[in-house]
Amino acid sequence: MKTLVSYDIVEDKVRRKVFEACKDYGLTNVQYSLFFGDMTHNRREELFQRLRRIIGRQEGKVLICPVCDKDLRLSKAIEVSAGMPEEAAEAAVSYPGRSRKKARAG
Amino acid sequence: MKTLVSYDIVEDKVRRKVFEACKDYGLTNVQYSLFFGDMTHNRREELFQRLRRIIGRQEGKVLICPVCDKDLRLSKAIEVSAGMPEEAAEAAVSYPGRSRKKARAG
Repeated sequence: MKTLVSYDIVEDKVRRKVFEACKDYGLTNVQYSLFFGDMTHNRREELFQRLRRIIGRQEGKVLICPVCDKDLRLSKAIEVSAGMPEEAAEAAVSYPGRSRKKARAG
Repeated sequence: MKTLVSYDIVEDKVRRKVFEACKDYGLTNVQYSLFFGDMTHNRREELFQRLRRIIGRQEGKVLICPVCDKDLRLSKAIEVSAGMPEEAAEAAVSYPGRSRKKARAG
């Protein structure tokens, strides 16, 4: 099941470890502190326990949230990179739950 | 429907406007760049268009993702604040989709 992992960690070293843990679990870093990818229930639980150990008593927040296909289809994203031409910026809308072709059809 | 809004915006002024827009739509700032709250389909679309205008051609990413009750029940969060005693940090697990009492029961 697709899963979002979002975190807000004060300490750089701890944030780095959280980042590495998410990568170890095959997730993709889609925003500065947001990962996205496929995870089974067990893998979510494993990652959750690992992040709890990493954070321990350090100040920080983590949300691990599965996202079903229907929610994904309803989701929308804006992705504008520096220096993108106007038309590209205008069209820089994507639908994580839909293939690029369908997304372009709007 | 509950909705997550996550953003990754380079420019402080633009990020500030995105933050204010999410608050205007009644969402709660649950992490540095993550908002959460109830939104209808129309309100999500309205907020999406507003964020698109705010970001324009500036570098930035936004994800607006509805989260159904079932996904919420499966989600897990860690929230540790500075100086939290050990036991509290241990127990600082919550289930956004469940009431606090049920969450404590683990």
